[in-house]
Amino acid sequence: MVQIASVFSMRHFFVLSLALNVSFILRSVFEREQGLNWFGFESEKDQVTQRTRLSVSSSLSSITTLAEAQDCGERIINLDHGDPTMYEKYWQQMGDKTTVVIPGWQYMSYFSDMSNICWFLEPEFAKQVVRLHKVVGNAVTDGRHIVVGTGSSQLYLAALFALSPSDASEPISVVSQAPYYSSYPSMTDCLKSGLYKWAGEAHNFSKEGPYIELVTSPNNPDGTARHSVVNRNKGTLLHDLAYYWPQYTPISSPADHELMLFTVSKSTGHAGMRIGWAIVKDKEVAKRMTKFVELNTIGVSKDSQIRAAKVLKAISDAYEHVDDSEVGETFFDFSYHNMAERWKLLREAVEHSGMFSLPKFPPAFCTFFNQVSEPRPAFAWLKCEKDIEDCETFLRDHKILTRGGKHFGVGPKYVRVSMLDRDENFIRFVKRLSTIRV
Amino acid sequence: MVQIASVFSMRHFFVLSLALNVSFILRSVFEREQGLNWFGFESEKDQVTQRTRLSVSSSLSSITTLAEAQDCGERIINLDHGDPTMYEKYWQQMGDKTTVVIPGWQYMSYFSDMSNICWFLEPEFAKQVVRLHKVVGNAVTDGRHIVVGTGSSQLYLAALFALSPSDASEPISVVSQAPYYSSYPSMTDCLKSGLYKWAGEAHNFSKEGPYIELVTSPNNPDGTARHSVVNRNKGTLLHDLAYYWPQYTPISSPADHELMLFTVSKSTGHAGMRIGWAIVKDKEVAKRMTKFVELNTIGVSKDSQIRAAKVLKAISDAYEHVDDSEVGETFFDFSYHNMAERWKLLREAVEHSGMFSLPKFPPAFCTFFNQVSEPRPAFAWLKCEKDIEDCETFLRDHKILTRGGKHFGVGPKYVRVSMLDRDENFIRFVKRLSTIRV
Repeated sequence: MVQIASVFSMRHFFVLSLALNVSFILRSVFEREQGLNWFGFESEKDQVTQRTRLSVSSSLSSITTLAEAQDCGERIINLDHGDPTMYEKYWQQMGDKTTVVIPGWQYMSYFSDMSNICWFLEPEFAKQVVRLHKVVGNAVTDGRHIVVGTGSSQLYLAALFALSPSDASEPISVVSQAPYYSSYPSMTDCLKSGLYKWAGEAHNFSKEGPYIELVTSPNNPDGTARHSVVNRNKGTLLHDLAYYWPQYTPISSPADHELMLFTVSKSTGHAGMRIGWAIVKDKEVAKRMTKFVELNTIGVSKDSQIRAAKVLKAISDAYEHVDDSEVGETFFDFSYHNMAERWKLLREAVEHSGMFSLPKFPPAFCTFFNQVSEPRPAFAWLKCEKDIEDCETFLRDHKILTRGGKHFGVGPKYVRVSMLDRDENFIRFVKRLSTIRV
Repeated sequence: MVQIASVFSMRHFFVLSLALNVSFILRSVFEREQGLNWFGFESEKDQVTQRTRLSVSSSLSSITTLAEAQDCGERIINLDHGDPTMYEKYWQQMGDKTTVVIPGWQYMSYFSDMSNICWFLEPEFAKQVVRLHKVVGNAVTDGRHIVVGTGSSQLYLAALFALSPSDASEPISVVSQAPYYSSYPSMTDCLKSGLYKWAGEAHNFSKEGPYIELVTSPNNPDGTARHSVVNRNKGTLLHDLAYYWPQYTPISSPADHELMLFTVSKSTGHAGMRIGWAIVKDKEVAKRMTKFVELNTIGVSKDSQIRAAKVLKAISDAYEHVDDSEVGETFFDFSYHNMAERWKLLREAVEHSGMFSLPKFPPAFCTFFNQVSEPRPAFAWLKCEKDIEDCETFLRDHKILTRGGKHFGVGPKYVRVSMLDRDENFIRFVKRLSTIRV
């Protein structure tokens, strides 16, 4: 008995307790929203209810399995990328609502709409983009041009091409406040373009003349709301609003900037589609961005545009009650609650460990949910406390893969951790994190 | 009566006669292959036969409609782009054989196969690419790396990135024998890259040091078989084999080059998918190409890869008799005969007009069809004869839009004309062309 007690330390009991807490929290969330019993195993004819129950029971069973099985800390937990697989569960629950069927002879032409500046933009996709922004209230679209891209990455490059003077004697500087998205420097400089070049931290930028300032808000990696910081008269602003959706941050008002980038990867979780869109005020900029995509990839997959349109439509339909049938949980409700639960668990684990800290976010009123709430970013910007200098290496020693601060233009005491992985992986992560000591 | 005779001139009767010829030619081709009667209107249970008949009758009816209707030369015929809409008819005939059904929760992750250098390559797509090349015998794939791209355009840029020395003091020269694909110069130079720059006509290239020679074979725009022309020891070859398929040219042997580009746009006609692939010998080159696509678009639409896989599979299945059901006409048979008919009609129209000339292609043995045949390129490289100096403008005056020779690095006496448009547009073109006089 003494031996057993020594094998199962307080730490082990905490892990078990944490896992049970997860079960209870998820249970209460889902019971509140769906009026379901604990496991929901009874046979039921209502398809939507069946789907929701399946989801609840699978969430719980996976977490219970994890609680029962001992996580010996051997399995590698990869949260380096922001792969949004958390959302798979929601779309599974939606069944065939967003299934696309494309016959072999459809969408064969290069062209989608020759009357549009962006001639490869599928009209139905454009329509659903505008509609969703109106439903959510997160961006002004009236009188703007939509340019579709192969993910917002391609549109970032298209925007640099469009905003750079073509006749300048030297490349225009591209700056952003640190910490900034780790891929921006390498995306900007990989071809050693004579049009633009990465000039790093916006606060340190002192060069005279034109520049492009990239404003990512909420910011990747640290989740903060951002505004331009250079504020000189020859600057052009490029807003990356990939995370300006109600599951991640309170929507304060419709964003109204010159050039705004969005993507399905982070809004709906469909990263594999590679579909992003730009909302552009200036017609000539929209034309040049279109030209870039033409020279880069001669347009954007129609199949993915059609599929993305169907996904966006399903989200808006549910909020506008277009469909009379039961819609189940709405998309942003599902993702809001998931993100809120995840942040709660992460903060508990961080507090229990005592080795880390997380940013605090001021609560704000969200016009979409009509309530005050705290931001729940898609990434955790985790800081190693005590005397740990290299947080990425420290966590890698615990088989947790994250992305270190130096990739984001700051010091190695920080790491970026994806909050969007599947339940099982995320729960395994918070469990392991909570047990980390020096 | 005299009035009627003056209204309906010899030119009008020729047009009518040409249209009837088209009907007879198509009739004999399809009758030979399908054992069908003239219009094939009888009710029939065999689905495949019905589909084929539908195709024949729709071809004929559209052409007949054209013959009956007067083409007053008012309608703009746009053959500037190589939009491969000719192929829609074939895939319509195939019914649901290549229909894809994608549920909303599938293919959400960024990742396809982490064990592959090209981590965003869908394994099923890679499998069907390799299989089709074995069926057709047009490229060596054993021991090679496949890199998927958003069309072969993206792979062209990825190849330049991969083949350029990253530490060179000046950009590497990219050359190609004229006439070359009109987009290559602007694609190469649009970002003023410090890694590579367009250096034009390969025959004029005399600079010492490393260079990249682009070999497009069969060539766009003129359809000729091409080999490298610079032949110095510091050159790297990049082969664009988008048109090395049996409908366009006799397949002499499996192509076996360092780096070969292909695309569904021209092989199956699915331009809207934006799917291309590279077959790469060198592992490091495949890695760098993958890195480029990662920095450019973080991968390639999974939806389109899945759809492309299904299309390629259907083609191979028919040749390998995997499916027991009647397959109808096989893809390359359909497209071979269509291209052969179109070239026959075009040459007749050119001869009748007397204002133009076309390249002559030497017949060669095709290992795929097991017979000797002439090339039937996807573009016609049309030359204006007599004293017409600007062929593009001359044809535009007849409301025929083509792309002039200067875009391809040669003189304005030439134009490139797409041979891949829908039947109706193509027939309207040859009819109008045949009636053109000074």
